[in-house]
Amino acid sequence: MLYIIEEQSGKAVRLKKGDIITVIDPQGKQVSDMVLFNAHDLKEKISSGKTLDFEESILLSTGHFLWSNRSNKMMRILEDTNGRNDFLLAPCSAETFRIMYNNPEYHPSCLENLTKNLEPYGISQDDIPTAFNIFMNVQFDEKGKLSVLPPTSKAGDYVKFEAQMDLLVCLTACSAEDSNGGSFKPIHFEVSSSN
Amino acid sequence: MLYIIEEQSGKAVRLKKGDIITVIDPQGKQVSDMVLFNAHDLKEKISSGKTLDFEESILLSTGHFLWSNRSNKMMRILEDTNGRNDFLLAPCSAETFRIMYNNPEYHPSCLENLTKNLEPYGISQDDIPTAFNIFMNVQFDEKGKLSVLPPTSKAGDYVKFEAQMDLLVCLTACSAEDSNGGSFKPIHFEVSSSN
Repeated sequence: MLYIIEEQSGKAVRLKKGDIITVIDPQGKQVSDMVLFNAHDLKEKISSGKTLDFEESILLSTGHFLWSNRSNKMMRILEDTNGRNDFLLAPCSAETFRIMYNNPEYHPSCLENLTKNLEPYGISQDDIPTAFNIFMNVQFDEKGKLSVLPPTSKAGDYVKFEAQMDLLVCLTACSAEDSNGGSFKPIHFEVSSSN
Repeated sequence: MLYIIEEQSGKAVRLKKGDIITVIDPQGKQVSDMVLFNAHDLKEKISSGKTLDFEESILLSTGHFLWSNRSNKMMRILEDTNGRNDFLLAPCSAETFRIMYNNPEYHPSCLENLTKNLEPYGISQDDIPTAFNIFMNVQFDEKGKLSVLPPTSKAGDYVKFEAQMDLLVCLTACSAEDSNGGSFKPIHFEVSSSN
């Protein structure tokens, strides 16, 4: 089944262990933030710290796992046609635009869109962890200086994940200008059942 | 006032906005994990993702701030005589030793010591975020490969922080062999009031 996330919005979906989810950048150069929760116990969730620790890498692509705060595997990356994702930076929020973009006006954000789509499941904004930022092109130099460049993804690039437990997944089409080269675009995803 | 954290243990303390806390490595080559909570609302806590985002750097030292999940400043680093800290990796846990050290036996861990010292304040293990790892020497190469080396800190090295809000702080003397060159040592800290 194909799901469409309109520009600057988000969507939540439940997966069973073994299900495959393919996150697609249909037009190219668009970022999708992904957060994961154990479907049966929402206090267990995706952890950047545990993932970087167990995978021993800042960059995560085909063959790597995404881990939870309880040191369990949540997703395996089966395929990644673009090859650049970020797990350092938090989802963009109202304060990102106020502080980093010097924009005091209302601006949609990934944190707002994650919150909107997760609140019906009983998850509040404070409980949303650092997201796995699919297609996000964060560069670092040897001194650790970080910079956000436009994604290298082309139209049709995708990252395919296999659920390692029953999951509640939330995805966005990112709202931050720096993350997508200044143009807002949709994200598509497909779910295929293991049964 | 000087506090002593014995080897492989931890301690929690409350700070007022403006208080100064100095975390000292009395013998050298020892790591201390630090987590922070808003003293008046424990759902607000230190965030690696927000800190790396706002400070635009993987490496954090003098002049940098540590930020919360609500995009507020929690600490300012006033002074850092060693200059190498990590904010990528999660606190070591029982699973760190089982999975990464291939050790199925009981082993003390920073996550256990943070939990022990924070439970009296109503904070459970699942609510403990990725810690700011003072003196921890995590190296990364241009491909993002991570390695944990012994700290470069010498006896008496310290990092001095100024609280930017009223805080509940928890610190450990790290229990992981890789983080301290295989020898477990204490951590000291001093608190001086702004009044």
